[in-house]
Amino acid sequence: MTPSASRVPSDIEIAQSATMRPIRDVAMDLGLGADDIDPYGRYKAKLPMSVTSAPPRGRLVLVTAISPTPAGEGKSTVSVGLSQAFRRLGHNAILCMREPSLGPVFGVKGGAAGGGYSQVLPMDDINLHFTGDFHAISSTHALLAAMLDNHLYHGNALGLDPKRISWPRTIDMNDRALRQAIIGVGAGNGMMREERWVIIPASEIMAIVALASDAEDLERRLGNIVVGTTGGKDKRPVRARDLNATGAMTLLLKDALRPNLVQTLEGGPAILHCGPFGNIAHGCNSLVATRAGLALGDIVVTEAGFGSDLGAEKFFDIKCRFGGLNPEAAVLVTTVRSLKMQGGLPKNALDVEDLGALERGLPHVAHHVRNVQQFGVPVVVALNRRLSDTDAELQMVADYVATLGVRVALANVWAEGGAGGEELAREVLAELAEGTAAFRPLYDTARPIREKITTVAQRVYGADGVDFSAAAEKSIDWLEANGMADTPVCMAKTQYSLTDDPSRLGVPTGFRVTVNEVYGSSGAGFVVAKCGDIMTMPGLAKVPAAEGMRLRPDGTIEGLS
Amino acid sequence: MTPSASRVPSDIEIAQSATMRPIRDVAMDLGLGADDIDPYGRYKAKLPMSVTSAPPRGRLVLVTAISPTPAGEGKSTVSVGLSQAFRRLGHNAILCMREPSLGPVFGVKGGAAGGGYSQVLPMDDINLHFTGDFHAISSTHALLAAMLDNHLYHGNALGLDPKRISWPRTIDMNDRALRQAIIGVGAGNGMMREERWVIIPASEIMAIVALASDAEDLERRLGNIVVGTTGGKDKRPVRARDLNATGAMTLLLKDALRPNLVQTLEGGPAILHCGPFGNIAHGCNSLVATRAGLALGDIVVTEAGFGSDLGAEKFFDIKCRFGGLNPEAAVLVTTVRSLKMQGGLPKNALDVEDLGALERGLPHVAHHVRNVQQFGVPVVVALNRRLSDTDAELQMVADYVATLGVRVALANVWAEGGAGGEELAREVLAELAEGTAAFRPLYDTARPIREKITTVAQRVYGADGVDFSAAAEKSIDWLEANGMADTPVCMAKTQYSLTDDPSRLGVPTGFRVTVNEVYGSSGAGFVVAKCGDIMTMPGLAKVPAAEGMRLRPDGTIEGLS
Repeated sequence: MTPSASRVPSDIEIAQSATMRPIRDVAMDLGLGADDIDPYGRYKAKLPMSVTSAPPRGRLVLVTAISPTPAGEGKSTVSVGLSQAFRRLGHNAILCMREPSLGPVFGVKGGAAGGGYSQVLPMDDINLHFTGDFHAISSTHALLAAMLDNHLYHGNALGLDPKRISWPRTIDMNDRALRQAIIGVGAGNGMMREERWVIIPASEIMAIVALASDAEDLERRLGNIVVGTTGGKDKRPVRARDLNATGAMTLLLKDALRPNLVQTLEGGPAILHCGPFGNIAHGCNSLVATRAGLALGDIVVTEAGFGSDLGAEKFFDIKCRFGGLNPEAAVLVTTVRSLKMQGGLPKNALDVEDLGALERGLPHVAHHVRNVQQFGVPVVVALNRRLSDTDAELQMVADYVATLGVRVALANVWAEGGAGGEELAREVLAELAEGTAAFRPLYDTARPIREKITTVAQRVYGADGVDFSAAAEKSIDWLEANGMADTPVCMAKTQYSLTDDPSRLGVPTGFRVTVNEVYGSSGAGFVVAKCGDIMTMPGLAKVPAAEGMRLRPDGTIEGLS
Repeated sequence: MTPSASRVPSDIEIAQSATMRPIRDVAMDLGLGADDIDPYGRYKAKLPMSVTSAPPRGRLVLVTAISPTPAGEGKSTVSVGLSQAFRRLGHNAILCMREPSLGPVFGVKGGAAGGGYSQVLPMDDINLHFTGDFHAISSTHALLAAMLDNHLYHGNALGLDPKRISWPRTIDMNDRALRQAIIGVGAGNGMMREERWVIIPASEIMAIVALASDAEDLERRLGNIVVGTTGGKDKRPVRARDLNATGAMTLLLKDALRPNLVQTLEGGPAILHCGPFGNIAHGCNSLVATRAGLALGDIVVTEAGFGSDLGAEKFFDIKCRFGGLNPEAAVLVTTVRSLKMQGGLPKNALDVEDLGALERGLPHVAHHVRNVQQFGVPVVVALNRRLSDTDAELQMVADYVATLGVRVALANVWAEGGAGGEELAREVLAELAEGTAAFRPLYDTARPIREKITTVAQRVYGADGVDFSAAAEKSIDWLEANGMADTPVCMAKTQYSLTDDPSRLGVPTGFRVTVNEVYGSSGAGFVVAKCGDIMTMPGLAKVPAAEGMRLRPDGTIEGLS
């Protein structure tokens, strides 16, 4: 079937016309009784923590992508569609994805619940407050911030240097006016100091909840958070546990730590939990969600943010390493349109066949394929079909991928749902059947920080080397002197380019990466290296998506996508 | 039975050892099926909007109190206990209360779910995130703030004067460092301007959700919010609807508008919804919650914040007026200990009998009795028993109240639950049987703003008159010139005194009230008059309650009360 725009209604129309199964029925398919889950409304539920520590029996498949372009790649849509396709082929597949942030929902991007006939439901709830996890994370972050400023106000017994507070404030909104601020203004209103807000997917609490293995581990990680340093020459780290904040913070997260069960448009199970961004954080759904999927299903389809250089690298080097996970295959999503952009075509020229531009873009796929392969994980390329693709273009991509010795399949999951993903699912099953995976992280965490960063930049981005700013050099020395260096690195970099310059598409060579800032996320358990300019608080567009949204009198929703 | 501290465990111990009924069973008692409610976990549920517009059949009883002192009055505990007592006597009573804010929970006050054997459950969830209503209100408030600053950044087409932005930011936390701030600092980060944060119970969105009668009314009220004024001589109000924010804001509140069903410790229904503070906002649970109670029950026991001068006045003049409610009786809670403080005794001298101090405090009760009576609502005084009370003291209060021609009953609901409230319940039933109520608001909203404020100050506080600051005078003139005067006034005043000076207890005379600030809450539908110093953002104590909280390995909670 050739996809046709006129036959596919909008995402929200499809979502709202779907007949959802009661969530207890979805849970029952997984062997869970009504007493095992806590329903949130009729179509969402919290899973019990017990399933997150049960023995794994499923096989783990990562969905990643080439570098994103404005043409759109459809990674979430392919993830949903692939899980639907596996179920159509008789497998007990479970989808694991991140929860969306309100920032992008009200900004320009819209939600993150897939699209067309490959969505997770209830789409509107998932895109709005869902089960409150982000709100709980936001409150937890805010409590630590309030206790920190309260400590400064009441005499600062810990000797914190107010100029060296590293714990920001957070909000789940695109709010550029909060990027940089002065707080504590006015008599009796605490210590005046600089402050910055980060969006909630960039909060260290988000990373912590996403990486914690249980409540005890959560509390330990929360206690390790470094909120700033002492003053003078000494500059020792001051942690959340020094502020006696850890117990109340854990309390606020007791339900947020439990993964959420929802369903795909075809009624299969989907576990959505946590949502660290892939450019400024580690970019994967929670470890406990993936573990729950592996305990309850035969195949777990999970997703990591943006291209393989960001989400996949951190999925492998951070999440799989911490969680002892064993990914056995990866799907690399690409489209003809976005490869034409990687080949130099502007967005307004994508609708017509251009084999020349496409050919110039193809090496970009090869780079991402190699990125994944070097972790010991075999790749299947998913060519996500779009309306404007010509047969010649599709064939060119397929032929090229074949020369890489890699499986490739057309995916038409947006227009056809799971049926449009069966070819892809069969290729992934074939890859799993061959059993060639031998997962290994890219580097040893015991290596020095500079070396770990350089390894990622050279082997994943293709850089010649790394330049560290003076501030970054100082931070690295401080982290190493304070025993905070023996961790993975969480690279923060633009998602649009393999370099740290968002305008350089394709496969740039002969470039160096600049690391401007390095800091320890000791609760999450990694060291963040910010390359180039990375925004931790987006702004809204001139006409934000929010302006087009409304609740109709019949209770249905307009403008959410 | 004489209460004994040694026999009553802590609030959290009682709450955690209680066997809760499945919330669907509580709903079933009210004639609601499993499909009518949306469960949030097993012990909380959202009620359908349909019950909020069903015809009322219940009788409305308000629980108010004398002015609060550090001795504690136990208004929430009496409210819960009274509703439990009514049910023991065979009545289908429903409790309607506010939801607690995280600010006081982590500050010093603890939660707001009653105490002893008169609590609402699940106490821990109610005191933490509950069903997410406050978070939804917080997001809605934040979206409008972000869209406002985004409008300023993208050219300010509406001509807002950045020095006259009246929409603050909000957070559900005691965070004094956010009382006054400068935001938009730095290149590309929006317009630099002053900003202030208010705690969520002071957000106008909280008042709006609490007063909206349905989704349509909610959207209309949200659109009416004034966010600031234009510049120059003109100074026209700029509203949320001018920013095209109303639709998305309504969307964010679609579930928060639905009242929440939980249960008392004795398994009876309790509807908890919204939580505007009584000193800086109108201080009552939502109108839709009360309407749901009146549609589903025979007697609705509801509560208003702080003393009769604050919560009860605003319950009558704002909520009952807007909602067409007909309160038929009021319970005025007092204790021997707090009357001794009103009579001049310091907190550390309350444990021994002091009939002299008590006698000096008694006129304070009379003042609050008259406050309620002048609204046409009959009063029953509840003498909430405390461990240190002597028989002579209890008798003195009872005798005094009898001279006022008002019913009085001992309540021992903290130690005995509903059984300890039966005497009080019988007195309220007797009052209802007499049917003397003839509710009327205190003033006509068509009168000028200064007159309405003065009426409340003179007739409710006992003031000689009102002094308006120059800023208040200007605001009032502006509100009247812009058609925003024809509403009730929402008085913001210290809860500790009938005057605007928190140190003046008892029944002060010969005083004037100073109104420092007046502003229109056009979405909520009232004009706020701030008398004296009223904090819209509390701070944490030197050792916040949060420091004593933790989640035990078995999942139970320590330190929440």
